[in-house]
Amino acid sequence: MMKFQNTHSDSGFDLTDYLNSQRQITSQALKKIIKTHFSDSRLSSAMQYSLMASGKRLRPVLCMAAAETAGKNNDDVINAACAIEMIHTYSLIHDDLPAMDDDRLRRGKPTCHIQYDEPTAILTGDALLTLAFDVLSDPPSLPENIAIQLQVIKTIASAAGHRGMIEGQMRDIEAETITAPLDKLKQIHRLKTGALIEASVTTGALLTGGSQETVNQLKIYAENIGLAFQVVDDILNVEGDAAKMGKATGTDASRNKSTYPGLLGMEESRQFTTELVNNALHALDIFGNKSVPLSALAEYIIRRER
Amino acid sequence: MMKFQNTHSDSGFDLTDYLNSQRQITSQALKKIIKTHFSDSRLSSAMQYSLMASGKRLRPVLCMAAAETAGKNNDDVINAACAIEMIHTYSLIHDDLPAMDDDRLRRGKPTCHIQYDEPTAILTGDALLTLAFDVLSDPPSLPENIAIQLQVIKTIASAAGHRGMIEGQMRDIEAETITAPLDKLKQIHRLKTGALIEASVTTGALLTGGSQETVNQLKIYAENIGLAFQVVDDILNVEGDAAKMGKATGTDASRNKSTYPGLLGMEESRQFTTELVNNALHALDIFGNKSVPLSALAEYIIRRER
Repeated sequence: MMKFQNTHSDSGFDLTDYLNSQRQITSQALKKIIKTHFSDSRLSSAMQYSLMASGKRLRPVLCMAAAETAGKNNDDVINAACAIEMIHTYSLIHDDLPAMDDDRLRRGKPTCHIQYDEPTAILTGDALLTLAFDVLSDPPSLPENIAIQLQVIKTIASAAGHRGMIEGQMRDIEAETITAPLDKLKQIHRLKTGALIEASVTTGALLTGGSQETVNQLKIYAENIGLAFQVVDDILNVEGDAAKMGKATGTDASRNKSTYPGLLGMEESRQFTTELVNNALHALDIFGNKSVPLSALAEYIIRRER
Repeated sequence: MMKFQNTHSDSGFDLTDYLNSQRQITSQALKKIIKTHFSDSRLSSAMQYSLMASGKRLRPVLCMAAAETAGKNNDDVINAACAIEMIHTYSLIHDDLPAMDDDRLRRGKPTCHIQYDEPTAILTGDALLTLAFDVLSDPPSLPENIAIQLQVIKTIASAAGHRGMIEGQMRDIEAETITAPLDKLKQIHRLKTGALIEASVTTGALLTGGSQETVNQLKIYAENIGLAFQVVDDILNVEGDAAKMGKATGTDASRNKSTYPGLLGMEESRQFTTELVNNALHALDIFGNKSVPLSALAEYIIRRER
């Protein structure tokens, strides 16, 4: 495997500790939202079931790390980070439906429609998507940040919508019947996975008052790690361990799905991820030490086992 | 049928003209949004198909009429009105899915999953819901209205979410297996239909700077017409003409669904709608002539044939 341009190894930064801590912050914030918003209804139960499954929390962690890179902490960041996790979770619930990927296992647990039923899963997805915007429209802790908050809602809605994540999902379904060439596959993943990852990072920067240059550099970072994330997902689908992944593996090949390993081969796919992560790291150069968590996360994305 | 407390008949107001004109304004605004946002993708095509079917546009019309009642016009109202119509449309697409009501006809045309396919219909609903919040987060025409705009997003998200419309849909599904008593049936409809109708009216008032008293009175109005709307829907499902309705009739009885005619009988159901409309009209008393369109809409809701 190629060497990375720079690493965080000499900064005293411990990625495992960092991930544990940021995931815990996310889970606690999500629990707090659940406590405020939810009732004892079946719908609330299903929302909580899917939201509190042991996800990687990659998007919230990226959002908070981007805020750190932009230089400030902000109470509103964790709120927005949770909203993005809700959108990610809803997209998984709908993707897993019988009419879509028909998956029975997600994050090591039965998918929402298996644990509950199909109508509940459809409505649970709808409800998590809607709750995200409910949470995003909480009054900001500083009234002068209200314009930024509106901008954040727009950023997230655009990334999650019909010109972002959902269009990616549409094209992904279409690509199951027609083999997509490499450039189309990249475009699918820029939309399907990349758009919301980019929005996570941009949101962190915007909410902490990051400059346009900061936002632009972080976008380059996010675009590269977003694509890297998907290539690794494809690699793990070929050679990953279903128990570690918490979902079925080997499913892409059986579905004749276009994948990076299928188009490029395994070795070239791995090289491609290294190249993407190097691009991402390069985009962080201007931030110096402040971007240590984001650098570490970029490396985590390609070293992960699930 | 009981007489109404007051009518608009001597005000020179023509409801048919008004409805035609407001529906046209809504359709033109929706077309403008489509032109700005959509591409030539299958997803955009399905969104447009469902959004531009000949709906009653009741929610946008109510939103604009509430703005008139609150006393001012505002460019942002039509934008918000369109966003609410998108949310209403997404909810119909998902309700019609095979796993939900399994309906093949809507607004006189094949439902989204029949015209396209099931995955497309799921994603089209998701995309319209997301686009609603994209549109709602457009910068307001007057920067000083930005706090109100955030409040509007919250109002709509809450009404459409897991403690509003979606919870109503969940309970409606549950009520298909257990016969709901009258108070539960009312509660289902307050959530399923009433919440978004109330949000439509509240949004119109908020965006035009309506006072708290204005908002409160309009909420009473909306609560009553929302319920009346649903009772009439049940009546039309029993005796309506499928061709006029643009969807199948007689379906509630065949599904053993709890309905007002089923619980109260037809005559008492009709009296109940009159009572609700009178409550609604009474709540408008403080507005004088400014509420003529809202009064007329209340009467329209129980006289409609589809």
